[in-house]
Order: sequence, then structure tokens, then C-alpha cells
Amino acid sequence: MGSFPEQQHPKEAFGWAARDSSGYLTPFKFSRRATGEKDVAFKVLYCGICHSDLHTLKNEWSNSIYPLVPGHEIVGEVTEVGSKVEKFKVGDRVGVGCLVGSCRSCDNCVNNLENYCPQMIFTYAAKYYDGSITYGGYSNTMVADEHFIIRIPDDLPLEAAAPLLCAGITVYSPLKYFGLDQPGLHVGVVGLGGLGHLAVKFAKAMGAKVTVISTSPNKKKEAIENLGADSFLISSDQDQMQAAMGTMAGIIDTASAPHSLLPLIGLLKSHSKLILIGVPDKPLELPVFPLIVGRKAVTASFSGGLQETQEMINFAAKHDLKPDIEVIPIDYVNTAMERLAKADVKYRFVIDIGNTLKATS
Amino acid sequence: MGSFPEQQHPKEAFGWAARDSSGYLTPFKFSRRATGEKDVAFKVLYCGICHSDLHTLKNEWSNSIYPLVPGHEIVGEVTEVGSKVEKFKVGDRVGVGCLVGSCRSCDNCVNNLENYCPQMIFTYAAKYYDGSITYGGYSNTMVADEHFIIRIPDDLPLEAAAPLLCAGITVYSPLKYFGLDQPGLHVGVVGLGGLGHLAVKFAKAMGAKVTVISTSPNKKKEAIENLGADSFLISSDQDQMQAAMGTMAGIIDTASAPHSLLPLIGLLKSHSKLILIGVPDKPLELPVFPLIVGRKAVTASFSGGLQETQEMINFAAKHDLKPDIEVIPIDYVNTAMERLAKADVKYRFVIDIGNTLKATS
Repeated sequence: MGSFPEQQHPKEAFGWAARDSSGYLTPFKFSRRATGEKDVAFKVLYCGICHSDLHTLKNEWSNSIYPLVPGHEIVGEVTEVGSKVEKFKVGDRVGVGCLVGSCRSCDNCVNNLENYCPQMIFTYAAKYYDGSITYGGYSNTMVADEHFIIRIPDDLPLEAAAPLLCAGITVYSPLKYFGLDQPGLHVGVVGLGGLGHLAVKFAKAMGAKVTVISTSPNKKKEAIENLGADSFLISSDQDQMQAAMGTMAGIIDTASAPHSLLPLIGLLKSHSKLILIGVPDKPLELPVFPLIVGRKAVTASFSGGLQETQEMINFAAKHDLKPDIEVIPIDYVNTAMERLAKADVKYRFVIDIGNTLKATS
Repeated sequence: MGSFPEQQHPKEAFGWAARDSSGYLTPFKFSRRATGEKDVAFKVLYCGICHSDLHTLKNEWSNSIYPLVPGHEIVGEVTEVGSKVEKFKVGDRVGVGCLVGSCRSCDNCVNNLENYCPQMIFTYAAKYYDGSITYGGYSNTMVADEHFIIRIPDDLPLEAAAPLLCAGITVYSPLKYFGLDQPGLHVGVVGLGGLGHLAVKFAKAMGAKVTVISTSPNKKKEAIENLGADSFLISSDQDQMQAAMGTMAGIIDTASAPHSLLPLIGLLKSHSKLILIGVPDKPLELPVFPLIVGRKAVTASFSGGLQETQEMINFAAKHDLKPDIEVIPIDYVNTAMERLAKADVKYRFVIDIGNTLKATS
């Protein structure tokens, strides 16, 4: 194995990488492993941009490894399968989300919760079993063990499927696990970004009455008319908030900026949960008394297991549920990151890898 | 109805009350209502001292009403029952806990969760249906609707039963509701006071492996030899804490002083819960990332419903489970409060009302 990224593995690959915590992306030659007997290799056609790509590019979680090729909302078409691959064949439409490895034997893994395996391997900027660093989907090819490959249903456009592989499963899994998928429940969604807009769509498809809780009055029209929310609460409006107290069976909170949990806990019915899926860098203030008097919980959720991710994407296809996306060429990616940092996107960027990533760019 | 406490109702009563937020208790004449058709009246024999008595005496929760007769761990012997009382007769051993009323028709009430009814009426310092203020068990007699009366099993000493009516149900209910009553689970208990020592005993009786987590190394012998805990962790000992990371199925946290949740969340297995039953006056710091990566929850619990309180006390009798108590005469009560403020009691004071409360004292 050579020591340079383009010599480590036998298969040439090409993508865009950041070289340091400036996070600035430029073209990058590297290599992918030969397709192992349980591996599926595919040509990348689209890759979504997740907010965590931005955090990782800038090393905001202090665990980045450079050069860093981001991207864990990866879809494409199978080009090669290993001899022991059972579920996929050349030409299939497939995708890879946040994970490309897990121990497959711990309690979490045997319960299809690979996403909570202590030894899970992230799709990029992580150390793989062979010691090499994983590279994500801002690149022309991908390879992964078939266990970590998701089949994209035929009636779901590939560019729409991409953001579902991270943002989609991140909202779908807690809606299911915490019992918010029963029709008729009143579900709150805090924040209308990549995660929030999908939380509204999935909760609606599950039959909930959905209320968006936002700091921005100007998102009301969008939330109700475009995304299909049933109602809209401005969190700073005491009268609106007071009127909705104790009405919600659960809240999906996608906000990563510091924010007050007290009014959100107040919106919950007794015995209900505030579910955090955004990642604030600082601790939030937790008022205890309001939890006690209603036996309420503040909980959280991270992505979903592979089986549930397949279930989620099949559910999306069945309900014609698609993220709202802005498809961009790869050479727009640094501008897209700047816009993402300002939340200036409705609601997810998807890079058109297949048509715009050229080895000569 | 007269305007003085001793003239409001037809039945003379006598107890000890605080007149203001000094919390100092002195003898007090008042009155109880005539025994209604669904009411059970009883002679008070013992009353436990709960930490919330101390908070309320000093108006620390800003909702106290004076004169204030505390006490919601009340046991005694039935002296009179109303014409429509079905479950009790004169001479029965009975008790009253935190509640003497609730709406009986809301979702919580119909699910035997009167303790979460928004219209619940506390046993003391609350307004009853007739407009009078409720008085607690630091007094010679008690009366309550039979729905709020608990039967004390014959083989449970009355003085031991008293603290179970608040402290006992406060730990029993979350152990059951959050699934920690399955034999063999590893359960943590934070804090060894009135609540904590009972949490250890109930969790042990349910078959758990119990670890006490404490700031005080000198409580180790006590926790293991006297209370029966299986192990003991000093929360400031990084090595001990590190070795126990990810091992607990749940933690009952009884601490009301400000404390860090991060190491406690670390002790939990994935998908497990930190259950707060102490009431810190200030918000605690909630680190979000450790919740997300293990789908963990911080939740809370308040007391229990009437049916569950009866179940708890039957369970205690069956397992010969008793609180560790110090029985005191009523004229020691102000000293007891001073000691309680310093956590100088193992582990619960119980006032011997029957033998020491005299109308002339």
C-alpha cells in the first residue's frame, strides 16, 4: 500500500477535498479499494450536502482528518459486485448514508441499530478496517460492504433520494421509535432547515397534525402552504405558545443554535418527549421542575440503522415524499457551503456528481 | 363557616403549624370537615417528615399558605366512615400521601395517574373544593375521600409505612414505569437520603444490581452493608466512573443540589434513561451530544397514582421492605427540621403523633 491517497488502493478515484480546517474544497485524486467479495462498488451520480459536512470540513467537532472528502448522502448506479454479494447486481440504483461499517455483533448491531454501535465507521474521515481513511461521496465512485448499501426504489428520483439517506432517516427514526407515527397525534417540529422540513413531511405522511415552532414569522406561509404543516407557532409569541400548552404528543427539535427548552417542554402533554436531533455545541439549560410535574423527557436520536433506513426510503417512495432540493454543480460547492452556513437554502443542496464532476476540473 | 381555622369546620382538630416563612412550628388549633358520605376519617398515629415539608414551611417554592400544617406521609386508624364508603371500616389501618383530590375525569385520572392531574389537590397548603385550605398530618386527625386513602397491610408497622406514602412511591413509580423492575438489570442510584435509600431497597427487592453513585466516600460502608447496594461509585473518581461507563440500564437521581449530568449520562447504556426525582431550584446543564449518540433520555417523575401507591405498599409488606427511620416526639420537630436541612438523618424522621401530640402541648 502506498502512502499517498492515490496509491493506497488499486482503484483510481477522484473527488473534491478540504486540505485543512479552512474547509475550502478543491479537486483531489485518491483511490478506492478493490471490490471485496461482500462489496458493492458504484458510480456516484448525486451527493447531498449535510450540515455536518460543513462542521467536519471546518473541524468544529475536533475529529476531522485531512485531506477530507465529505458526503454521506450518496446515490448512484452499481458498477461491480463481489462474489458473495446477495442483494445487489450491476445496474441497480443504490445509496450509502452515514455508515460504512459496524461490529455486527454487539447488542446494538444484532438489533439493527448499527448507528449506535460503539465501533461504527463513518462514511468519511474515519479509519476503515484496513487502516485507510474513509472518503465520502463528493467523488466519482464509492464502495461499501453490501450490508451498508441501501436500494433506491425505482419511482424515487436519485437526486431526491440522496438527502433521505441522512436527513430523512434522522427524522424518520425518532418519529417511529418514540411512537409519533400513530395517525392523529399532534407533533411539533422546531426549526425549518434540512432536517425540519423533512420532519414536517414525514410526520404528515404518518398522519400527524403537525405544528412548526419557529423564531421567524416569515416562515409561516412556507411551512403551511409549501410543506403542508397544519399550524405555525412563533416561539416568542407568549399568547400563541400559552394557547398550545400541553397539546403535543412529541416534538422533534432540529435547532442546533442555543435555545430555551422550557417553552418547548410546556407544549408537551404529560408523559411526552422533546426529541433533540440538532447538535448544539454548548450544553442547553434543562429546567427540572417542568419535567417532573408531567413525567416528560428530553431525549435525542442519531440517524437510524440500515434496515430502518431501507424502510424509510421505501416509505418515502410509497408516499411520494421528496425533500425540497437545489441541485448544484460540483464547482459551486464552496459557495453552497457559505450559503448553508447562513441557512440560505430551501432546504438541501444536492451535488450533481454524475454530470459535473470531471477528473480534469 | 367561620373565618378562623378552628371555626371553619365542625370537627375540632389540633396540630403544629408554621405561621410564616420562618417555618418555625408551634401548636395550632384548627378544624376538620364533617365526615362526608365518601370520606374516611382517621386518628393520626405517625407522620413522616418529607424534605418538601421543609421547602414548603420556608415558602421556598413561593406557593405556601400560612398557617401551614405540613405532613403528607400520614398513617393511623379509621375512626369514622361515610355512608357510601365501600373499602374501609372503623379500626382499619390506613394512610394518606401527597394528594387528597383530583378531577377524576381527565386522561391522567382515568389512567390512575391522579398525581399528574392538572387539578390535583395537595394534602396540605392547597385549596380544597369547599374553599378551605388543606392541613397535613402533623395533627391529631385526618379526613379524605376514600379514593385517596391507602390500606396499610397488617404486617407492615405503621411507623415504617409512613415514609413509603411519599418517599416510597416516588422511587417505586419510576422504577416500574421506566422498566427498571426487570430482575438482573444494573440500576444506579444518585444520592443517599430519604429517597435514595429507598430507591436502593426497592431496586434490590425488584432484583436489580444496584450501584450507589455518591460524592461522599464515607457512605460506601453504609450503602453496601446496611442498605444492600451491590457496589458504590465515587462520582469524582475518574477511574471508577470510566470503568462503569455504558453499564447501567437506568439511574434514579435523587440529588436536589446542582450537579453535573454528563458523567451520569455516560454511565448509561444506549437507549437508557437518567430519571430525576430531586428538584434542583436552578436549571441543570444538559449536554446534548452524549444523549444523541446513545439515544439516551433525561426524564423525571413525580410521586405515583393511588392504585400504584397501594401496589407499592403491598410490595413493601411482601418483601419486608422498610425505610430506615428515626422516630421523634412532636416537640422535637423544629430540631428535626434543622437536622434535615443538614441531611443529618438516617434516613427519614417519623413523628410519633399518637403518643406525643397533646392538645395542651
